[in-house]
Amino acid sequence: MRVVTRALCIAGGLAVASSPFAAEGMWTLDNLPYTELEKNYNFKPTPEWIQKSMRSAVRLAGGCSGSFVSAEGLVLTNHHCVISCVEDLSSKEQDLINKGFLADTRSEEKQCPGMEINRLEKTEDVTARMQKALAGLNGKAFADAKKAEQSRIEKECVGDSGDKRRCDIVELYGGGQYHVYQYSRYQDVRLVFSPEYAAGFFGGDPDNFNFPRYNLDMSLVRVYEHGKPIANSNWFPINPKGAKENELVMTLGHPGTTQRLLTMAELETQRDLVLPFRLMFASEYRGLLLQYSREGEEQARIAQTELTMVENGLKARTGMFQALLSPSVMQQKRNDENAFRNWVNADTARKQQYGDPWQTISNTQTAWRNLYLDYVLIEMGMGSLSQQITWARTLVRGATERDKPDAERLREYSQAALPNVQAGLLAEVPLYPEFEQLKLSWSLSKLRERLGVDNPVVKAILGKESPEAIAKNIVSNSKLGDAAVRKQLWEGGFAAVKQSNDPALVLARKLDEQGRKLREQFDHQIEPVQKAAIEKLSKARFAFKGTSVYPDATFSLRLSHGVIRGWDERGTPVRPFTDFAGLFARATDFDPFKLADNWVENEKKLDKKTRFNQVSTNDIVGGNSGSPLINAKGELVGLIFDGNIQSLGGSYFYDESVNRAVSVHSAAISEALKEVYKAKNLTRELQLSK
Amino acid sequence: MRVVTRALCIAGGLAVASSPFAAEGMWTLDNLPYTELEKNYNFKPTPEWIQKSMRSAVRLAGGCSGSFVSAEGLVLTNHHCVISCVEDLSSKEQDLINKGFLADTRSEEKQCPGMEINRLEKTEDVTARMQKALAGLNGKAFADAKKAEQSRIEKECVGDSGDKRRCDIVELYGGGQYHVYQYSRYQDVRLVFSPEYAAGFFGGDPDNFNFPRYNLDMSLVRVYEHGKPIANSNWFPINPKGAKENELVMTLGHPGTTQRLLTMAELETQRDLVLPFRLMFASEYRGLLLQYSREGEEQARIAQTELTMVENGLKARTGMFQALLSPSVMQQKRNDENAFRNWVNADTARKQQYGDPWQTISNTQTAWRNLYLDYVLIEMGMGSLSQQITWARTLVRGATERDKPDAERLREYSQAALPNVQAGLLAEVPLYPEFEQLKLSWSLSKLRERLGVDNPVVKAILGKESPEAIAKNIVSNSKLGDAAVRKQLWEGGFAAVKQSNDPALVLARKLDEQGRKLREQFDHQIEPVQKAAIEKLSKARFAFKGTSVYPDATFSLRLSHGVIRGWDERGTPVRPFTDFAGLFARATDFDPFKLADNWVENEKKLDKKTRFNQVSTNDIVGGNSGSPLINAKGELVGLIFDGNIQSLGGSYFYDESVNRAVSVHSAAISEALKEVYKAKNLTRELQLSK
Repeated sequence: MRVVTRALCIAGGLAVASSPFAAEGMWTLDNLPYTELEKNYNFKPTPEWIQKSMRSAVRLAGGCSGSFVSAEGLVLTNHHCVISCVEDLSSKEQDLINKGFLADTRSEEKQCPGMEINRLEKTEDVTARMQKALAGLNGKAFADAKKAEQSRIEKECVGDSGDKRRCDIVELYGGGQYHVYQYSRYQDVRLVFSPEYAAGFFGGDPDNFNFPRYNLDMSLVRVYEHGKPIANSNWFPINPKGAKENELVMTLGHPGTTQRLLTMAELETQRDLVLPFRLMFASEYRGLLLQYSREGEEQARIAQTELTMVENGLKARTGMFQALLSPSVMQQKRNDENAFRNWVNADTARKQQYGDPWQTISNTQTAWRNLYLDYVLIEMGMGSLSQQITWARTLVRGATERDKPDAERLREYSQAALPNVQAGLLAEVPLYPEFEQLKLSWSLSKLRERLGVDNPVVKAILGKESPEAIAKNIVSNSKLGDAAVRKQLWEGGFAAVKQSNDPALVLARKLDEQGRKLREQFDHQIEPVQKAAIEKLSKARFAFKGTSVYPDATFSLRLSHGVIRGWDERGTPVRPFTDFAGLFARATDFDPFKLADNWVENEKKLDKKTRFNQVSTNDIVGGNSGSPLINAKGELVGLIFDGNIQSLGGSYFYDESVNRAVSVHSAAISEALKEVYKAKNLTRELQLSK
Repeated sequence: MRVVTRALCIAGGLAVASSPFAAEGMWTLDNLPYTELEKNYNFKPTPEWIQKSMRSAVRLAGGCSGSFVSAEGLVLTNHHCVISCVEDLSSKEQDLINKGFLADTRSEEKQCPGMEINRLEKTEDVTARMQKALAGLNGKAFADAKKAEQSRIEKECVGDSGDKRRCDIVELYGGGQYHVYQYSRYQDVRLVFSPEYAAGFFGGDPDNFNFPRYNLDMSLVRVYEHGKPIANSNWFPINPKGAKENELVMTLGHPGTTQRLLTMAELETQRDLVLPFRLMFASEYRGLLLQYSREGEEQARIAQTELTMVENGLKARTGMFQALLSPSVMQQKRNDENAFRNWVNADTARKQQYGDPWQTISNTQTAWRNLYLDYVLIEMGMGSLSQQITWARTLVRGATERDKPDAERLREYSQAALPNVQAGLLAEVPLYPEFEQLKLSWSLSKLRERLGVDNPVVKAILGKESPEAIAKNIVSNSKLGDAAVRKQLWEGGFAAVKQSNDPALVLARKLDEQGRKLREQFDHQIEPVQKAAIEKLSKARFAFKGTSVYPDATFSLRLSHGVIRGWDERGTPVRPFTDFAGLFARATDFDPFKLADNWVENEKKLDKKTRFNQVSTNDIVGGNSGSPLINAKGELVGLIFDGNIQSLGGSYFYDESVNRAVSVHSAAISEALKEVYKAKNLTRELQLSK
């Protein structure tokens, strides 16, 4: 599955793609590849088509895509994009994850704690303004000026619309361009439909990122405002007929991060440090969660979402790592870089204009490598995995930052960002002490192991105590599990937080103190130098390659085009469609290949030839999960939920011969809602008929 | 800790080291670096000195080193080398792992199930004979001839001495030379002393491979024959005074595997496939074991040894991986290889004589990469971790192999190897059903995950069943936990094994069938080609570099020389000795830094200035664990148990500036036995006095 992992997005690099292959590219809506669309598919998107598509697509702020599919605020996204909500709404008595959830009438719909949906309303290029504010600056001055100017732009954009509007600065081309994206912000989102885990994630981790596939990885949520469903005039009607083989299909979604034009120095940091560390970390964590899940049904339920996310990330990063270990991929990257460098160096004026950004980036990579483990374990929190510590750190840092003028705050606590921060902090969600203790004691032990017992920072954080003892104390004695306590502390601000002896806050203060030092090193010493070099590289590349380029993914709205098409797997053709018959043939008596009861019971009513999942050549990446797959008429013909295993190198390069996006076919969506789940009212609202 | 992991030893490469640094080298006793020893240390070992040292050193067949330290068969080795035995002797009621074990009188000594000790008696060069038998052969003919000739040599060597003598063919220089090593084989080994886990492994995984260090990683076992301790005239007296800084010290031990002169193609296989796979596999397994250990004291006890071994291997391989990810290491390796290749190619006669073995090896690496995952998961058993399946596979394969003439058997079932196989199979050891089910179901799920759900081999093994269900059935219904049942099946041979419906045997038969196909691919298609190329490379290297070279480690007896010396850690000098005072200063109230009760109680009686652990420049590697550290007089001044973190790249290269061997100082051994453990009789037998 293709959910974006925000934690990955650090130190993302440049920039601009080389001349695209046929279906390559994640295009911003203000710079669509019109020539290609017309030439390859005879398709000319009108301004109205673009505008309608933009307003029909949505973003789940937590890291997914989705789209409106009715005039009454119904949003279609993936099962795996709402699984955290389903988990929060579940309890020991009511296991909605495994049993599924259906609200066929409005009154049964349940609010998802802390979920936020954004719809893009307009974008504006503010590159000139940002560049002017940053001209000639470096180090802390650069970082301060950048924060301040971003804050001003966002504030102006939000205006007096308060929490209803969200404005984000999007750095395209790695900082070569700055745009401000204005969204409508919806914070009352209610769960409408989520299938059983066995249907939404049939085949589990073994089948994940594979095809042929048989997943009903869909869900429906509804956007509310003032206690009522919103009325929206832009939405994609579902067309159960789907698209034909080789027909043009497009995704409108929010790909999270690509790293297609990292320099060799950056790629080597990924290959030699970042990916090995994360793979080993996640592998061990996975083993821990697997064994915890074996301890009982309730433990299995509690750990299910976390385990799925960990396994998904592990598989995705394994694919990325394989790509970087491939001699041919690295050689191609090296050749591309050399050609580009030679072009710059071949001309004195160019040399003078662009300098040697590759060398600069190589230097910042050395600094970043030295900082990396401390940074991710302490500042990014991988060494203190715990819901209570996450809240505590938000309270501690939030208190300090909110006391500053908006322009001086860390970006994640800017006025524009606060509503989302607050919603996350104050959402009422269940807390499982045993599970929290497991995560915290283990991750603190990783902190100690990776940085070393005798490391002064580790000593400052752990003292002479053991990870176990610290975790036990926090889980037993912290009061932060109570949302009212968090609210009191959040509203009490700096004084309240400082006074509290809550053990989670005590640890959070230590982590915050050490984390801030690391953050400053990154923000003042590494990022400004890196950004300046990337800006030069980006300009040079425009000059070298021309204007028909797309920026790396930034979790902002993109269109990708492609066609429904299978591929050739080492000599064996893989057909682009699967059907319901294939699902029943693949089923066994054992998880993760066991059918959900609803499917067993209704098997006879189903048309077994119904198309289930399909592949297309669209260029997508994590974050695209839940993206609508539409045809030229703007009808929804599929629901993106994954890529094939070959697409995992897509972080670094796109290979049209084997890279495939995987979606739920619109026919399966329709047939399942009607025949398996008997969702009469929803079927009517979605205008689905035989 | 430095225990050898035999599973790593596959597809080991060549060959002969380049001109050694001062302390570099693991020397066979028939080719000691006399010139260096005399020049650097003014030390001239006599034939008598060598003979006595050879007969004082021993090998633990399971993967460690040791030495005789008394005339009555007392062997000194590491705590971590006997931990499996201590575990086998423990029960829920009697936790010898954590409480330690001391038999101060003979009658209290307890036999270690399945433990075998070997003492080298003589070696003979049989290169000419082997080369004659193999001349001109390749493929299956090569493999068959090799097995047959090895079998003949080993059989002649064993003669009519039956189980008392063990003869192994040792392939030195990667196959450039064949020697037959004749050992006395001892299969009645009894535990005499093992300290508490908290003393033997103080600091646990965090301190493992680090220094300064405070471990009493020692144990004593006694070798029996005919129910009585053996009388042996060759042993190393312990000298509690130890050695001085910069004094010559030597190890006599059994380093397991080094890969110092792998070709670039082989190193890349390690870096890009073998190490990442094993690191991720072990990380996940570690997480599983960690969580299992958290479930209760009894679970913690059951998993302790396995967890320690997994963590140790993980840390060691992380160090090896780091070395191969280092650009400077790889560049040096590349330069060395290029220089060597250029030398060969610079002369027509040489080109003709040696050909291009690098290209040949590169080709076999491609084949090996394609085979690797199937091979380790199926044939080597990583995909079916379970005591019951291990026994079952020995029964299944053993039955078939024993029906063949000795010369045609797989080497591990040759007549010479059978006593060790049988001892392992028939040893009475406890079996923990819940733990076995955990290991087996998890590892079968890895088999499915790594090879793929739709892989025909996986389908042949798993059918439509789940890993969980298969494991549960085997653990619940197999009778192989009963040593008498195993004995019956072993003695019943092929017919008995074939008839049995024991579920462990059912699965083992499937694994054996698939495993044999893979084994044949390796034995017939890869190994002969690889060996022939390595032989050429080895000859070329002798011609290029001269004769002053040592072979890569092969778990056979080697001497390494060095001096007691600290090192410079990024500008900070690390002193070569620690003392008891440091132990008490480092202790906290929490594992793994909690002191054992005996140490707390006897703190006041101890001389805090007693030297505890020490480092020396000796070139060692996994398998050297338990090696005596002796001075020129043949007195034991230390007990090797580890290397520092910088030594982990020692698989691939030796760097005298930072590579250090870590040993328990002889003073600590003496003081602990006397003052902490009050082992009066042992103290007397070891002739230790204040």
